[in-house]
Amino acid sequence: MLSKAQNKYIRSLSQQKYRKENNVFVVEGDKIAREWLASGEMVQMIVAVADWAEEHHELVHRHAEASVHIVPEHELAAVSQLQTPNKVLLVVRHMPRFPEVEANAWCLALDDIQDPGNMGTIIRIADWFGIPDVVCSPGCVDAYNPKVIQAAMGGHLRVAIHTMHLPDFVKSASVPVLAATLGGESLYEVEPRSSGILVIGNESRGVSEGVLSLATRQVTIPRKGGAESLNAGVSTGILCSHLLQR
Amino acid sequence: MLSKAQNKYIRSLSQQKYRKENNVFVVEGDKIAREWLASGEMVQMIVAVADWAEEHHELVHRHAEASVHIVPEHELAAVSQLQTPNKVLLVVRHMPRFPEVEANAWCLALDDIQDPGNMGTIIRIADWFGIPDVVCSPGCVDAYNPKVIQAAMGGHLRVAIHTMHLPDFVKSASVPVLAATLGGESLYEVEPRSSGILVIGNESRGVSEGVLSLATRQVTIPRKGGAESLNAGVSTGILCSHLLQR
Repeated sequence: MLSKAQNKYIRSLSQQKYRKENNVFVVEGDKIAREWLASGEMVQMIVAVADWAEEHHELVHRHAEASVHIVPEHELAAVSQLQTPNKVLLVVRHMPRFPEVEANAWCLALDDIQDPGNMGTIIRIADWFGIPDVVCSPGCVDAYNPKVIQAAMGGHLRVAIHTMHLPDFVKSASVPVLAATLGGESLYEVEPRSSGILVIGNESRGVSEGVLSLATRQVTIPRKGGAESLNAGVSTGILCSHLLQR
Repeated sequence: MLSKAQNKYIRSLSQQKYRKENNVFVVEGDKIAREWLASGEMVQMIVAVADWAEEHHELVHRHAEASVHIVPEHELAAVSQLQTPNKVLLVVRHMPRFPEVEANAWCLALDDIQDPGNMGTIIRIADWFGIPDVVCSPGCVDAYNPKVIQAAMGGHLRVAIHTMHLPDFVKSASVPVLAATLGGESLYEVEPRSSGILVIGNESRGVSEGVLSLATRQVTIPRKGGAESLNAGVSTGILCSHLLQR
């Protein structure tokens, strides 16, 4: 059971303002919730249907710090941000643990990425390729938006997410800065390397002038067909695959 | 203005059954609608707000075959499948024009891709890399679903979309068949080439056994981090980028 106040509290967390105020965020869905519960992160609330809670009682019992609420499906649906039916929702404490960006690795710098699906996909790509840090400009969609959490498939557990003024971050870098643009040199001419900053621009405006002027080089995925552009997540995947090869 | 019957008709087209019955599909949104109107495809209805219709009257006038409906925003919103506000919606006649799959090119074969966003992203990737054909298994989401149209960003205008029994299609192929799996040989060990069939599997089950047993080889994007998998669209982009290089 959820009280009226608890119900309202969880629903309020769809807004960044209330996530910040309470220093928590929401994790939804069977697979991703199990991953989070197994990770040892601090959980504030576990809201689950009876079947799920029973099947995963060991995971639930590990979290003595959490309040556990067994609810019927319609009650879960009422607080859920997902469109598809769900079994479990967690309210997780937000505890940033990685203050510094690793200097001798690859890092993704996101310049006003707006779409939560793209943001989540990019965090998942960083997770796949073992990229330790994603640096977001203040104009990016909140990385703790429920749709971002969903699309990142647990990536938040392994990738450190920072918010910084990108020109300052890029200026201070000791590794090459590669900006993804539509008019740079061919990606396939760029040698893979073990460290660097890859800047991904806004979905419609691309990389901003202030960051572009500080980039070491501009890199483009050569086009062979008629499409005007590629999706930001797909572009990031292609660039990472080539640049981090071997 | 839209009559009650027209309103109902357009809304019915969110279902594949009614799209098939009427041999039409819906295209929504400013940019993609302009691309469709400029393409010379046959349009049945143009539903737009006054501002948009005025600004693009030349494009609208090219389509004497279409009935044009100027509506207030709330009326457009009532028939729209999109979440974000919109300016224009087209009902387009579905006329398949590419009966054969090109034999000496790359082709994407989709084995039960379920997510409309993934399907659209994959068509957009084919469009970017100049891949002429996408072959869908009968279990794929309908490629004319409004969300697929949206995510493909006009790719339907340049990429031929076929539905075939995949094992039969793969068996008849005269080019190598590469299946994307999590346990195959490293993508980076595979030489780029000018033709082939790339099979992309279902989002959770992967490539089905019947297709896998017919594949020439299995290809995997090497993982360096902790993520369990990559999104189907991102994987397709990475595979295409490497295999079609130069």
